[in-house]
This record gives sequence, structure tokens and C-alpha cells, in this order.
Amino acid sequence: MGKISLLVMILTICVSCGGKEQNSKNFDSEEMIIRLSEIDIKPEHLEEYISILKEESRASVELEPGVISIYPMQLKENPAQIRILEIYKDRKAYESHLETPHFKHYKTSTLKMVDSLKLIDMNALDSETMPMLFKKIK
Amino acid sequence: MGKISLLVMILTICVSCGGKEQNSKNFDSEEMIIRLSEIDIKPEHLEEYISILKEESRASVELEPGVISIYPMQLKENPAQIRILEIYKDRKAYESHLETPHFKHYKTSTLKMVDSLKLIDMNALDSETMPMLFKKIK
Repeated sequence: MGKISLLVMILTICVSCGGKEQNSKNFDSEEMIIRLSEIDIKPEHLEEYISILKEESRASVELEPGVISIYPMQLKENPAQIRILEIYKDRKAYESHLETPHFKHYKTSTLKMVDSLKLIDMNALDSETMPMLFKKIK
Repeated sequence: MGKISLLVMILTICVSCGGKEQNSKNFDSEEMIIRLSEIDIKPEHLEEYISILKEESRASVELEPGVISIYPMQLKENPAQIRILEIYKDRKAYESHLETPHFKHYKTSTLKMVDSLKLIDMNALDSETMPMLFKKIK
């Protein structure tokens, strides 16, 4: 086998390796459930709440293929105000998330720590942006 | 060259192709600028505003290596309320974003369309979550 044809073959396989990964994450933006959760925590419970939420969001992203993002943030000027960007592949993925042991544990154990909770349903403004982000951070 | 050694060689190159991509996105969570922008648009300008924002967010993600996310959303129950999750690699990337032609065009052309604007600085609750998300959607 000539050196050049070997190189072409290797490059082709390299590219198709990458392609396969990309295609396996072929999310349909129209089906996604996107939510911004605004949660205010009683300051005396903040440390405990954060530890439970951390555990829950990691478990969700790691264990559930349909959880695209559970990305929790704190307001810099008031860390007791939590915002979470939640993105689920589709309604089925969201409903199955609600039935997981890690979500149930989070929900029951933090109930008393929450001062107010607002779940805001969102639409992505550009259905192409999510695949673009995927491509970008790939 | 034997078939097996050729296969091993190809696989090794494949893996190193993937590894190179991953390492090039080695973001430092502590350095990131994370912001949730809350923008209310005058309803009569909404269509035009969305078209300009779409263009701006796509250009930013495509052209600027330091823009990790400009992810615009609309409230389902009131599409004139926009939320954008903006993540920049670091302060330098954010400052350079402000100087781009696409941002300047967005800013000046939409000024009259904006009813209210709130820029909320955030901290990621879990500095490990972003790399985890990268890994997940890779």
C-alpha cells in the first residue's frame, strides 16, 4: 500500500470517527423542553441546598441520556438566588427525569429550604443555535 | 504491514484526533464570565429584533473562539421577554466581543426596540458542571 493512499485512508477513518459522534447527538430542537428555573433559597439552608442540588444535577447529566443540560447558577450579588437552565431532549426525557431516585431525593429533601420557586418555560430563539453550540464545544 | 498493526495504528490516530479537539477546549471555569440577560422588547419591534439578535448570536458563536455560549430564549407565555445565557471564556474574550462589528451593529440597531434591560452576573454553582456538559454533548 502506498504511503499516500494509507494517509488518505487514515484521514477518512478519522473524519468518520468524528462524524459518528456528532450524529449520535442529533437532538431535535423542536422537541426539546427548555426551562429556566428561578429558585430563592432560605439563607440558613443555602449551603445544604447547594450540596444536594450539585449532586442531583451531576447525576442527571451523567446518568440520563435525555438530560441535555441542568446548569445551575447563583446570582453574584445574591447567592441565595438560584437560576437553572434545564434542557431535556423531549417530553419523555423530562417525565422520566421526574421519576429518577436522584430527582425525587432532591425534591423531597429541599422542599423546606425553598422560599420561592418559578418554573419558566422557554423556546430557543434559534433552533439552529443548539446544534451550533454542540459543534462549537465538541 | 500486517492487518492488525495497521488497525492499531488507525485506531491510535483516531483517538488522538479526538483528544486534540477536547484539549483545545480546555476552559477554566473560574475565569468564565457568565451572565443571564433579561431583555423586554417593545412588541411592535419584536420580529425585527429577533432577526438581528439571531444574526448576532450566530456570528458571535461562529467567529469568536472565546464566546462559549450566546443562547437566546423567549418566554413561552410572552415571546417579547427575551433571556440570553451568555458565557465567555474570560474577561478578555468578553471585552473583545464588545468590539466586534456584529455586536456593535446589534447594540446600535436594537437600542430603540428595547423596553428594559437587566444584565445579571452569575456564578456557576458547580465549576465541574461545564466540563461535564462539554463531555456529554461532545
